[in-house]
Amino acid sequence: MRVRGTLHREKTPYQELAVLDTFEFGRMLVLDGIIQTTEKDEFVYHEMLVHVPMFTHPRPRRVMVVGGGDGGSVREILRHPAVEEVELVEIDERVIAAARQYLPTLSGALDDPRVRINVTDGIRRMAEARDFDVILVDSTDPVGPAVGLFHEDFYAAVARALAPGGVFTAQTECPWVTPQTTLKAFRGIARSFPVTRLYTAKVPTYSNWSWSFTVGSLGRDPLDEAVPGPMADRLPTRYYTAALHRAVFVLPRFVEELIKE
Amino acid sequence: MRVRGTLHREKTPYQELAVLDTFEFGRMLVLDGIIQTTEKDEFVYHEMLVHVPMFTHPRPRRVMVVGGGDGGSVREILRHPAVEEVELVEIDERVIAAARQYLPTLSGALDDPRVRINVTDGIRRMAEARDFDVILVDSTDPVGPAVGLFHEDFYAAVARALAPGGVFTAQTECPWVTPQTTLKAFRGIARSFPVTRLYTAKVPTYSNWSWSFTVGSLGRDPLDEAVPGPMADRLPTRYYTAALHRAVFVLPRFVEELIKE
Repeated sequence: MRVRGTLHREKTPYQELAVLDTFEFGRMLVLDGIIQTTEKDEFVYHEMLVHVPMFTHPRPRRVMVVGGGDGGSVREILRHPAVEEVELVEIDERVIAAARQYLPTLSGALDDPRVRINVTDGIRRMAEARDFDVILVDSTDPVGPAVGLFHEDFYAAVARALAPGGVFTAQTECPWVTPQTTLKAFRGIARSFPVTRLYTAKVPTYSNWSWSFTVGSLGRDPLDEAVPGPMADRLPTRYYTAALHRAVFVLPRFVEELIKE
Repeated sequence: MRVRGTLHREKTPYQELAVLDTFEFGRMLVLDGIIQTTEKDEFVYHEMLVHVPMFTHPRPRRVMVVGGGDGGSVREILRHPAVEEVELVEIDERVIAAARQYLPTLSGALDDPRVRINVTDGIRRMAEARDFDVILVDSTDPVGPAVGLFHEDFYAAVARALAPGGVFTAQTECPWVTPQTTLKAFRGIARSFPVTRLYTAKVPTYSNWSWSFTVGSLGRDPLDEAVPGPMADRLPTRYYTAALHRAVFVLPRFVEELIKE
């Protein structure tokens, strides 16, 4: 990817953070050398991480995001009218600060009065959280600060932090490039949730192949007939549609076989 | 993409041809500087180009491929037991020769007795072809020798070359990167076919975004209830499944809006 220039670079207490300006993808947030989000393609990832679980829950009022300090997931969550409160749990406040300065189309959502920013460790916060309707993990790869977010003990804590009928979704890496990471996350989630489903979407800057997300639900199946409901086609999305909500759970054969017991 | 070495390079009468050995994707065929196929990911493109139209037709006996000198599409076509004859129409015999030497897992299919190789111009051949059940365009981008294969006059000739109930599919470029090219192809096909449908698949080495394919059918709709039929899950595929056959026609919103009149 051709880089026009470096807008910002710093070493935070948790990671190397950079904001680059690229020719093809606009501004780009990079943590420990890995692309996290770009202005051009972030809508694919954020819409698909957020709207699938949000429309699976019949009335998501209290929502938590772990990671996602850029604000993109929060922006999409706030499009759902039932939402009363969003807690953003981000370990690295420098990510939020950099997004506020350089990625306003994502971070602008963080100023909404329904949003509470909680700069802390996601694992510690999850241990005491209760009664959330939807919890999302919008994390970096399972190296560095995010390692614990891919552990089955964390998934068990998420299940306890959800209200009855609660829905959880995490980004679960690329099943083509790191199949064992995706499989471990899928199985870990399946130990704590009665309904576990994997879906994919092509996020251009994440991998040459498709990216995966896993839903763990205490209530409705994301493929339940009543999901995603009549509101799904009324959001101003660029990627997500009600029909796509179902289609993304239909997996290529080798992914289907990967997660089959 | 990191290249281990160059196995072959020549200037043919039609294009610059190279076969490279890469670390991540194995051997790779390159024409005029554009990646055509790699050993690692070719199954996605070839399975999705071939099986969608082949299972849409109730009994595909006579099949033509325009382009596709590497043999990957022919290999997938021959997995369908109804097939009696496959004509490969390739303008550049050097592509076939390079594939025979360097890409045996693709070109091996060209030795099957049901295959007839016709080294000629696809547009000229189409003008006189008749009674094919399925015709596929497995072409390079619409620059250089493939320009005419994206023209509405060519699509009209394809419709005349098909038997009643015939099914056509072409690769129609990346709707994210070159939306006007995809749209022009889709509309051109729609002028000659009563049923026109666009589907997508992520081919890792083609684009950061998803690739598109367009079906033009004189007979069954690829989304007809009877399609893809009971054989679809019995092929030894790595990507295509019967369920995916339907799911790939569900498009991201911006693609759906692109091709909407």
